[in-house]
Amino acid sequence: MRKKSVNELKVGDKSIFGKTLTDADLFAFAGICGDFNPLHINEEYAKTTRFGGRIVHGMLTASLIDYTLTDLIGLGGVHISQEIKFLAPVRLGDTVTVESVLSEVDYQTRRLRIESTLRTQDGTICLTGTAVGKAPKHQNE
Amino acid sequence: MRKKSVNELKVGDKSIFGKTLTDADLFAFAGICGDFNPLHINEEYAKTTRFGGRIVHGMLTASLIDYTLTDLIGLGGVHISQEIKFLAPVRLGDTVTVESVLSEVDYQTRRLRIESTLRTQDGTICLTGTAVGKAPKHQNE
Repeated sequence: MRKKSVNELKVGDKSIFGKTLTDADLFAFAGICGDFNPLHINEEYAKTTRFGGRIVHGMLTASLIDYTLTDLIGLGGVHISQEIKFLAPVRLGDTVTVESVLSEVDYQTRRLRIESTLRTQDGTICLTGTAVGKAPKHQNE
Repeated sequence: MRKKSVNELKVGDKSIFGKTLTDADLFAFAGICGDFNPLHINEEYAKTTRFGGRIVHGMLTASLIDYTLTDLIGLGGVHISQEIKFLAPVRLGDTVTVESVLSEVDYQTRRLRIESTLRTQDGTICLTGTAVGKAPKHQNE
């Protein structure tokens, strides 16, 4: 990981991150955020819902965008805002892939816009996101 | 935790969640999301930045909204979308408090809007968020 100048970034730059989401992720996340909704942690309850089993916290799946932002912008980047749309559930054991694309670069203000899409192994889009960020001015800033 | 009917919800309903954010949270979150930016995990590097030390992942602090959404809406609620503005860094060891308030309830469509504010122990607002959710129709849905 290195510091990039904003001039090294261009519209269309892409980062991809894939991960299988397991109980290790789910229970660590529940412990971090305090959300112990039985839809996430109680298989017997979750079986009685329309999902038929436990699903992963939406905000956990959204957190996978973080990797791609750090990868795209590099050291010294700032995360200013994030919009997330939750479109479909992610089930425990799903392998999800986040693809993030730089859609706007303002070389004057160093503001960036990044569009993210998260898909499961069968191609279902479960989440889309739009981040606004800022790139560092100089490589040594 | 129980299932609420939309008719039990009203504008102004509030949920508050406070937590001290430690290395246990930070490194668990890095392992979940794959974002090992040294600003979060490398104290010596972080000392050289304008933050003067490690800060917590923005998406980790955002995840604390989850507790309040589940608490407000109850079982069977759906998280449709989330907007987050990152306003100030959260430092390792900070005790943060999320306050979420139901700002809109549409009893016909069961759509909800929830506004969240996250403050540190000294009152600094580090994050604001707006969630759109949906309440279950019936208590036994």
